[in-house]
Amino acid sequence: MSGTLYGLGIGPGDPELITLKALRLLRAAPVIAYPAPEAGDSLARAIVAPHLTGGQAELAIRMSLVPGQFPAWEVYEAAEAELGAHLEAGRDVAALCEGDPFFYGSFMYLFSRLAARFPVQVVPGVSSLTACAAALGAPLASRNDVLTVIPAPLEAAEIRARLRACEAAAIIKLGRHFAKVRDLLRALGLDGRAHYIEHATMASQKILPLDDVTPAQAPYFSMILVHVRGEAWK
Amino acid sequence: MSGTLYGLGIGPGDPELITLKALRLLRAAPVIAYPAPEAGDSLARAIVAPHLTGGQAELAIRMSLVPGQFPAWEVYEAAEAELGAHLEAGRDVAALCEGDPFFYGSFMYLFSRLAARFPVQVVPGVSSLTACAAALGAPLASRNDVLTVIPAPLEAAEIRARLRACEAAAIIKLGRHFAKVRDLLRALGLDGRAHYIEHATMASQKILPLDDVTPAQAPYFSMILVHVRGEAWK
Repeated sequence: MSGTLYGLGIGPGDPELITLKALRLLRAAPVIAYPAPEAGDSLARAIVAPHLTGGQAELAIRMSLVPGQFPAWEVYEAAEAELGAHLEAGRDVAALCEGDPFFYGSFMYLFSRLAARFPVQVVPGVSSLTACAAALGAPLASRNDVLTVIPAPLEAAEIRARLRACEAAAIIKLGRHFAKVRDLLRALGLDGRAHYIEHATMASQKILPLDDVTPAQAPYFSMILVHVRGEAWK
Repeated sequence: MSGTLYGLGIGPGDPELITLKALRLLRAAPVIAYPAPEAGDSLARAIVAPHLTGGQAELAIRMSLVPGQFPAWEVYEAAEAELGAHLEAGRDVAALCEGDPFFYGSFMYLFSRLAARFPVQVVPGVSSLTACAAALGAPLASRNDVLTVIPAPLEAAEIRARLRACEAAAIIKLGRHFAKVRDLLRALGLDGRAHYIEHATMASQKILPLDDVTPAQAPYFSMILVHVRGEAWK
């Protein structure tokens, strides 16, 4: 009997925003795996740290995070072998996923490699999308609004076209793309309807007017919510 | 000292998909409020029923759910008065919200009426959007995909235009609009890339090919996830 791979959504950052289900499966798994930078601490592990009881094998999937690049193929090749060995030996593995596993999560790389060979169960989590709206105190979308999630690495012309086709938008993964997005929103006259937030629900959470953001300091885990038109925001 | 209004995201249906934070605030509130049909049980209350300890005042916000109509103004006028009285008397009120409070939730009606007068705190929850992706075992969006959430009550031509401007889409609130959406997806050649799901994470969850759905039976709480193009789905 092989083990089961659990993709656990652990929420946006506040350790209290984990679900009962993810917490139960997290504590029951003999092996936990999580993404981590090449050196230093894993954010995903830090989120669940208050809930760990010790005694679990830990597997850090370390990768260099180069702006503008997706994780290297080799990283997941190695992770597949390591996780696969545990699963083949009958040990369940809990893979920790910031936010939700299937909402722009790196879990898809593990999933696509392992789902054909082993049982996989995905536990949805609170995504950064709704966490940001809650932190801002403003509905994300309502009634018959169309809501679009736009990755900031897209070209400005692309982002502009997508913004035109929705009532509300979340522009995610800002990082070094912040200035481009801010300038576009200004050109469209939407900067007054846009809200910037970084590290939602974490101790380091910041909510700022677009004008007050230092572009070089916008982290990857930041987003802009903008109500293009419609009723959700006044 | 007035009480605080908590908008608690209680998740998509599985009682275990509530967060630790929502559970703590739910149990601590002297008053809980939830939407309910004119007669019969409240889905939101049913989701948290296993977690209730008794002894809390309960306030059902009853409304007639007429397809194609938003809840009557009078319903929220009355709810504002009832909740307001508790809050004025210093009692915290936990308003239960299926999924997430600010993701197409009816909590916005309470929020817009009460936030100016009383402290409000919103606790994000697991939305049906990511719950459906987890149940299907397929990423919602990844890398630089644009993801769009489209309410099914929109006209077919509108839905078609929005589908053209994204890589992945969730068409929500299907109900009596199912046949229109199915026919549109067929016309666009996207029906083979579409997945229907109702009541995700509940005991009554169903995942069906579009052809197997009986249009008259599609509930309001159903959606179609479709990968228009891009990489998230194979």
